[in-house]
Amino acid sequence: MNFISDNLAGASAPVMLAMAAANDGFAAGYGNDAWTRRVEGLFADLFEREVAVFLVTTGTAANSLALASLVQPWGAVLCHHEAHIAADECGAPEFFTGGAKIVGLPGDGCKLAPEVVIDQLARLRAGAVHQVQPQMLSITQATECGLVYSAEEIAALKQAVAPRGLKLHMDGARFANAVAALGCAPAEITWRAGVDVLSFGGTKNGAFAAEAVIVFDPADADEMPWRRKRAGHTLSKGRLIGAQFEGLLASGHWLDLARHANAMARRLADAVASAGKLRLAWACEANEVFLVLPSQAQVALAAQGAQYIAWSDGALPAGQALQPGEVVGRFVCSFATRIEEVDRLAAVLATV
Amino acid sequence: MNFISDNLAGASAPVMLAMAAANDGFAAGYGNDAWTRRVEGLFADLFEREVAVFLVTTGTAANSLALASLVQPWGAVLCHHEAHIAADECGAPEFFTGGAKIVGLPGDGCKLAPEVVIDQLARLRAGAVHQVQPQMLSITQATECGLVYSAEEIAALKQAVAPRGLKLHMDGARFANAVAALGCAPAEITWRAGVDVLSFGGTKNGAFAAEAVIVFDPADADEMPWRRKRAGHTLSKGRLIGAQFEGLLASGHWLDLARHANAMARRLADAVASAGKLRLAWACEANEVFLVLPSQAQVALAAQGAQYIAWSDGALPAGQALQPGEVVGRFVCSFATRIEEVDRLAAVLATV
Amino acid sequence: MNFISDNLAGASAPVMLAMAAANDGFAAGYGNDAWTRRVEGLFADLFEREVAVFLVTTGTAANSLALASLVQPWGAVLCHHEAHIAADECGAPEFFTGGAKIVGLPGDGCKLAPEVVIDQLARLRAGAVHQVQPQMLSITQATECGLVYSAEEIAALKQAVAPRGLKLHMDGARFANAVAALGCAPAEITWRAGVDVLSFGGTKNGAFAAEAVIVFDPADADEMPWRRKRAGHTLSKGRLIGAQFEGLLASGHWLDLARHANAMARRLADAVASAGKLRLAWACEANEVFLVLPSQAQVALAAQGAQYIAWSDGALPAGQALQPGEVVGRFVCSFATRIEEVDRLAAVLATV
Amino acid sequence: MNFISDNLAGASAPVMLAMAAANDGFAAGYGNDAWTRRVEGLFADLFEREVAVFLVTTGTAANSLALASLVQPWGAVLCHHEAHIAADECGAPEFFTGGAKIVGLPGDGCKLAPEVVIDQLARLRAGAVHQVQPQMLSITQATECGLVYSAEEIAALKQAVAPRGLKLHMDGARFANAVAALGCAPAEITWRAGVDVLSFGGTKNGAFAAEAVIVFDPADADEMPWRRKRAGHTLSKGRLIGAQFEGLLASGHWLDLARHANAMARRLADAVASAGKLRLAWACEANEVFLVLPSQAQVALAAQGAQYIAWSDGALPAGQALQPGEVVGRFVCSFATRIEEVDRLAAVLATV
Repeated sequence: MNFISDNLAGASAPVMLAMAAANDGFAAGYGNDAWTRRVEGLFADLFEREVAVFLVTTGTAANSLALASLVQPWGAVLCHHEAHIAADECGAPEFFTGGAKIVGLPGDGCKLAPEVVIDQLARLRAGAVHQVQPQMLSITQATECGLVYSAEEIAALKQAVAPRGLKLHMDGARFANAVAALGCAPAEITWRAGVDVLSFGGTKNGAFAAEAVIVFDPADADEMPWRRKRAGHTLSKGRLIGAQFEGLLASGHWLDLARHANAMARRLADAVASAGKLRLAWACEANEVFLVLPSQAQVALAAQGAQYIAWSDGALPAGQALQPGEVVGRFVCSFATRIEEVDRLAAVLATV
Repeated sequence: MNFISDNLAGASAPVMLAMAAANDGFAAGYGNDAWTRRVEGLFADLFEREVAVFLVTTGTAANSLALASLVQPWGAVLCHHEAHIAADECGAPEFFTGGAKIVGLPGDGCKLAPEVVIDQLARLRAGAVHQVQPQMLSITQATECGLVYSAEEIAALKQAVAPRGLKLHMDGARFANAVAALGCAPAEITWRAGVDVLSFGGTKNGAFAAEAVIVFDPADADEMPWRRKRAGHTLSKGRLIGAQFEGLLASGHWLDLARHANAMARRLADAVASAGKLRLAWACEANEVFLVLPSQAQVALAAQGAQYIAWSDGALPAGQALQPGEVVGRFVCSFATRIEEVDRLAAVLATV
Repeated sequence: MNFISDNLAGASAPVMLAMAAANDGFAAGYGNDAWTRRVEGLFADLFEREVAVFLVTTGTAANSLALASLVQPWGAVLCHHEAHIAADECGAPEFFTGGAKIVGLPGDGCKLAPEVVIDQLARLRAGAVHQVQPQMLSITQATECGLVYSAEEIAALKQAVAPRGLKLHMDGARFANAVAALGCAPAEITWRAGVDVLSFGGTKNGAFAAEAVIVFDPADADEMPWRRKRAGHTLSKGRLIGAQFEGLLASGHWLDLARHANAMARRLADAVASAGKLRLAWACEANEVFLVLPSQAQVALAAQGAQYIAWSDGALPAGQALQPGEVVGRFVCSFATRIEEVDRLAAVLATV
Repeated sequence: MNFISDNLAGASAPVMLAMAAANDGFAAGYGNDAWTRRVEGLFADLFEREVAVFLVTTGTAANSLALASLVQPWGAVLCHHEAHIAADECGAPEFFTGGAKIVGLPGDGCKLAPEVVIDQLARLRAGAVHQVQPQMLSITQATECGLVYSAEEIAALKQAVAPRGLKLHMDGARFANAVAALGCAPAEITWRAGVDVLSFGGTKNGAFAAEAVIVFDPADADEMPWRRKRAGHTLSKGRLIGAQFEGLLASGHWLDLARHANAMARRLADAVASAGKLRLAWACEANEVFLVLPSQAQVALAAQGAQYIAWSDGALPAGQALQPGEVVGRFVCSFATRIEEVDRLAAVLATV
């Protein structure tokens, strides 16, 4: 019962097969191969428009390159203070940008609200040489607490920052889960809602190591080839990533995988609700379930070998603070999570 | 007849199988998996000593991390002026080091001689705050012109820089080819000869995307985990690289592949010598053949669809300058080069 | 009635004379001059121990160099979220450190309490490669809200961070005012209390452009000469700064100036208290007075041409929030503030 | 007889007086003062056009800011390999630019010729992601060997790089000496000849610490305020630099000083020529004299206490190599060099 993260399984079978199939023969190097070309076309289809695509192997690289291409060293990136770029990448955004400031903001469930963003913008005066200048807003979809922004919410955030000219970045490490949850077109929650650049995650959704920076206005992508190369993220055998994405994007495989992961999380959340013993820290909207675990639940889970993360970061909503002994447990479902495991876990949780 | 580079084929079959075999089940993330652990052991065996190992996906990342970990921003790295770190990585070493200076030196066939290094050191005064301070010497094994340093040559270079306290880095993108060529133990041309840190290349030798930074004194590796993470090179599913190296290192597969590549180059060079029509720009010591090609040879190669690179970088030794119309053609053999292709190429070259 | 800042006057007369006196003849360049040597001796006397001294022209340079010398790019510097290094230097610390993270913490009056620091440390796990590593605590003395840390408070902060090995930096842009306020020896509130490196401010206290980085353990200063030079802060005619500090430090002139500034602020605060019309936002402990100004006071001040800054940053203590129309006005006194001006200002404030 | 450098004297009397005169009263901070405003106007007059002006205290800062504002981290700056930015600033340009590459080129007397530049450009392919991209050419006027570029020579260099879109930077640490030598308008050898950005030196020409970055197209200056602030080079009491420049630029004082320095060097060179004992390494075109000194000359100079630098950098022109025992001695004259000292030195040199 491993619910630690969605990046602990290998690749889905079709992705592994695509990698194996891509192995034969010679191919042009450094992303000039046929797989990468085809993937660019697949992304254009997926997003219903021309896009610039840059394949890399990690989400940290994708996020950091996206930020560095659109933010100057004296720029500020506004985001939730528990956003992956702020809290979990060891300062990679600062490294790639040459020292831009990642400004963390509060928000329930790692979601940002327009008024919080507007308030922060007011505190960073435009043109004041003593202060960093806000140049980007970054949101995570689905959030680090498993919540999903609607298209309207995203558009409202863009509207909040547009007067100051900020770009909107979406960390889509779990973008597939969000799209599956919303049942929307990818375009709806990205460029049509004002997103300028997207880190499209593959690794947490069935790939081995495949992330794509999707730049919706190609003019915003001018610096990317140089920045990617300088960071050592331009693979000579680029088809390794290309093939993974071809495996993911063909026939909607990526969405099937995400729907499965979401369904497993939903099944778990429903079972917990039915049992009526435990409360959720945040709503289950994608592929993660956050449960408030009293100590006897923690003991039971440990006894049964259920693996999860004790979530220290997310402050609970006002009025729902943890009682002594309680922790928030994060249970993540992935493409590889089996229904039997979910039901075993639910059974354990029903007894506490 | 594709002799453009040794990074245009996919992975060798055993490497691909190792990747596929590594795909099942859950594994700890971020390099804490069993594959990575085993590979660390394999490298310790290979080098006959404790080593610190850091797996990444590109040679640029391996080199840049190796440099950044041991050179301060005001440091200088001495190397050949056509070294990959100086000429082909778009300033990645400068990015990773925070602006250290890569100081290019001359040398036939991209090889450095101790006296050239000593002469440069004399021009960079120790402690003079106006000048960058030399802190590392980097050599490429085999060199960008396909030559191989002997253990004695390496030791002499280390001796040249040791009084000033420089570390010795080896860019081993083609380390396997050098070991195969010399028939020596890997330890002999690395730490026993004074090498402090090695970029051990897998990608050009049968892997898909697998390079290892080998740090011989673990104390030199303190900064590496942070630098790798900040650069986005700590894969969550680290077994992807671990499995490739396990495939390579098991049963000496890596050396078999390198021996094959070298043998193919040797076969080509011998055929050219037998034909007596063309001259080599540099001796064929590993897996590359550099031929001086008159225009009629270029025409014949193009007509037969032979692919190679016109090598603009390497200045020819004194007295062997190119005649009008001549170019140096670089023909690289890899694990995937087939004997039939070599013979076809040799046949074309015999006719010019 | 200019109370905007203590950096708007020129230099005190003795400092200006020292500059003029230093103008004659030739002197060795780049800080190897006699003035700089003598200033190093004066600082050693002042702090009652050997110190390493690095003269620069701005506080931003002093702070950033101090941080960069002791914090790695993946390090974190804990400080108040309104500290000058966090809010007013346009990301200079990030630039000099190569992208370290400045982590802002709350605290009344821009003062930090040990428990806040300890709480933050607990959230940054030692050795966790995903997170920046806390390596320095930086406090401002006197704080941005004009408060002064006692020697005991400083020692308690050092004790809070010592188990994790953090260095303690003091931004002493108004160090003289703090020493004057406490009536203590400079050593007491610096190295004896655990301070590792001090930005000793001269510019706000009678110099034209003179700041000194004082490193108490010379081993901590190894990188400074290179970092200063690379940042363009090693003046060829270093005596320009040396002479200013000689003017300041000779005969206790620096403390006389600070005592005057403090006395002017105290006089203002006392007058306001006597008048009983306005309340202080924070206690007047050094050379600044922060007053809560209702709108009629703002109007009166404007009408009389009194210049001050509306202080937007410092959140007031709980229970003392601003009422509609109120602002906090910052009134700074300097060596150049004349008693007549203070009394004129006090008279205006007494009428509102 | 101190001929070591032109940065060892203090400030000229009018400059010192201007500083003293600027000391009274309050002034707006951070370069918003009246002195700085007036200096901007003086520079506009001097260059006969609108210019953007950024005052700093060191030449290293001026050069590095000029480069960083117009060169991306993956850019290359072409310059002479003994240029100050390449050899004497400890990597400051790399620091400020975020790791751009300073590419050193050969040339007699530290002067660059168009063909050398064109040849290097051909080796850096436009758009090749593996290579840094040339974005700036930097020349020194007068050069590090005391030679002066004519307006025609500068225009030819700009023409050589214009097709590739490079900006032209002039390191004018001794710009005044060059203008005085050529007797031209400052505009002629700057923007009219294609210079985009100039480091206008004051420190070597009678100021204490005053350099100005002059950006001829204000659109090129957008980044400068932020970069200067982040580097700690935005002085709060900006009038300190403003006053120095006002002192220099008023009534042509800067040119008078430069003419004096040049005349002293000319007098020395003429005396040496008359004596017929020693040969010049390079022509005396500005304020420096480079003499080939046999060992008996070195002994005589030492015996008489004449101070100069043994110049190790500049390779002598072909056919004029140093004989055993010979060194090149650099003798620099400044605004403060007295005719008696020159004559004493000449007398010593006439005897060897």
